[in-house]
Amino acid sequence: MSLGRLHIVGVGPGDPELLTVKAARVIGHACVVAFFSRHGRVGHARTIADQFISSTAQELRFVYPFTTERSVNDPSYHEDMSDFYDDCAEKIRHEVHKGQNVVLLCEGDPFLYGSAMYIFDRLHISIECEIVPGITAMSGCWSEASLPITHGDDVLCVLPATMEEDDLADWLCRADAAVIMKLGRNMPKLRKALERAGRLDKALYVERGTQHNSKVMRLVDVEGNVPYFSLVLLSGRQNIR
Amino acid sequence: MSLGRLHIVGVGPGDPELLTVKAARVIGHACVVAFFSRHGRVGHARTIADQFISSTAQELRFVYPFTTERSVNDPSYHEDMSDFYDDCAEKIRHEVHKGQNVVLLCEGDPFLYGSAMYIFDRLHISIECEIVPGITAMSGCWSEASLPITHGDDVLCVLPATMEEDDLADWLCRADAAVIMKLGRNMPKLRKALERAGRLDKALYVERGTQHNSKVMRLVDVEGNVPYFSLVLLSGRQNIR
Repeated sequence: MSLGRLHIVGVGPGDPELLTVKAARVIGHACVVAFFSRHGRVGHARTIADQFISSTAQELRFVYPFTTERSVNDPSYHEDMSDFYDDCAEKIRHEVHKGQNVVLLCEGDPFLYGSAMYIFDRLHISIECEIVPGITAMSGCWSEASLPITHGDDVLCVLPATMEEDDLADWLCRADAAVIMKLGRNMPKLRKALERAGRLDKALYVERGTQHNSKVMRLVDVEGNVPYFSLVLLSGRQNIR
Repeated sequence: MSLGRLHIVGVGPGDPELLTVKAARVIGHACVVAFFSRHGRVGHARTIADQFISSTAQELRFVYPFTTERSVNDPSYHEDMSDFYDDCAEKIRHEVHKGQNVVLLCEGDPFLYGSAMYIFDRLHISIECEIVPGITAMSGCWSEASLPITHGDDVLCVLPATMEEDDLADWLCRADAAVIMKLGRNMPKLRKALERAGRLDKALYVERGTQHNSKVMRLVDVEGNVPYFSLVLLSGRQNIR
């Protein structure tokens, strides 16, 4: 019996029309559709791809053992997540060995900070994997905000707000354009770092970019808590505005 | 008479199936399709979008006055390019004022180093512009190369190889993951900078990513001249491979 194969498919930042034509085709032909979700949720990638999934497809739902309840600094975090990814990878391998074509859905682009990479790392030696790129959250957000991000020879840095304030301020001084992600609790630190770099005034905040309830505003006007999956954008120094 | 509008549409890195469903729809409904091209060429974005353009659409072809023949250091370069973009913007404005819906095609993502930004900069105050994001060349290339680019808290830097060797080496030391673009004549300098940063061995070279004649190889194995529009990729430090 011949093996199936695995497609790891980016479904983009939220608007289902931002799937690629290829993603729509590959998802539509899949016998098995796998995706991650939080406990008690449908799964964001599953929701985005909904209209493209065949009604006869079998679904593999991988529920994260925890999300924000446990700190990444807790030693058990990485061990338990690693076990979780091992288990997901085994379930996919099992289907591929049965000859099934499996699609693993992934928000944004699969290889830019996606959970799907941990599955790819475990499977790419033993089974055939193809990656279908997706529109990144950052592209979705700067398009939604109508903010040209990089002109000419601008350097773009993509920075997780999880790092130390000093490091963040240093990166924000050096970068021409920047995208800052993993906001949530890191927002007060990020504001201070932007202020130290003299760039707070120009920072743009985008929440749920490309979705019907999206928000675009100057960061200085944002009040209260913000979700982890929102972005701050700084346009490059060659932007004429 | 009511005004038309302008959609600036990313057509992705080369494979026509990597247009988004939205890009395909918007291009298909456009009365006027505008695009850039080099002298004597069809235009790469026009070629990628070909199958989605209506047979009744009017085409506006903007031929660059020069490409590599004149150096960006020549003072006349920026003046003549600025006049060129002024002229393109006027032609689009004219169509929109006649009530036409115009699409401006753009390789990759329109707001990441795209020529279309110079048109947007000139028109967005006076006419309605919507940006349709596209798959970036870098996403296309790391997907084609099956190279997860950033895990966890990796910092990603997108670097034009046009900068000085010292600066390039400095960025390559600091960055976790990196995408280096604008290669062409800058390749010997980039090799030296990568060597100084101790990262030459891990650098991956991708040419025409997602196209039928694509090339993926270790940078150390690349010989001879390379095209300007190819990329070098360095996966983040948290990559387990």
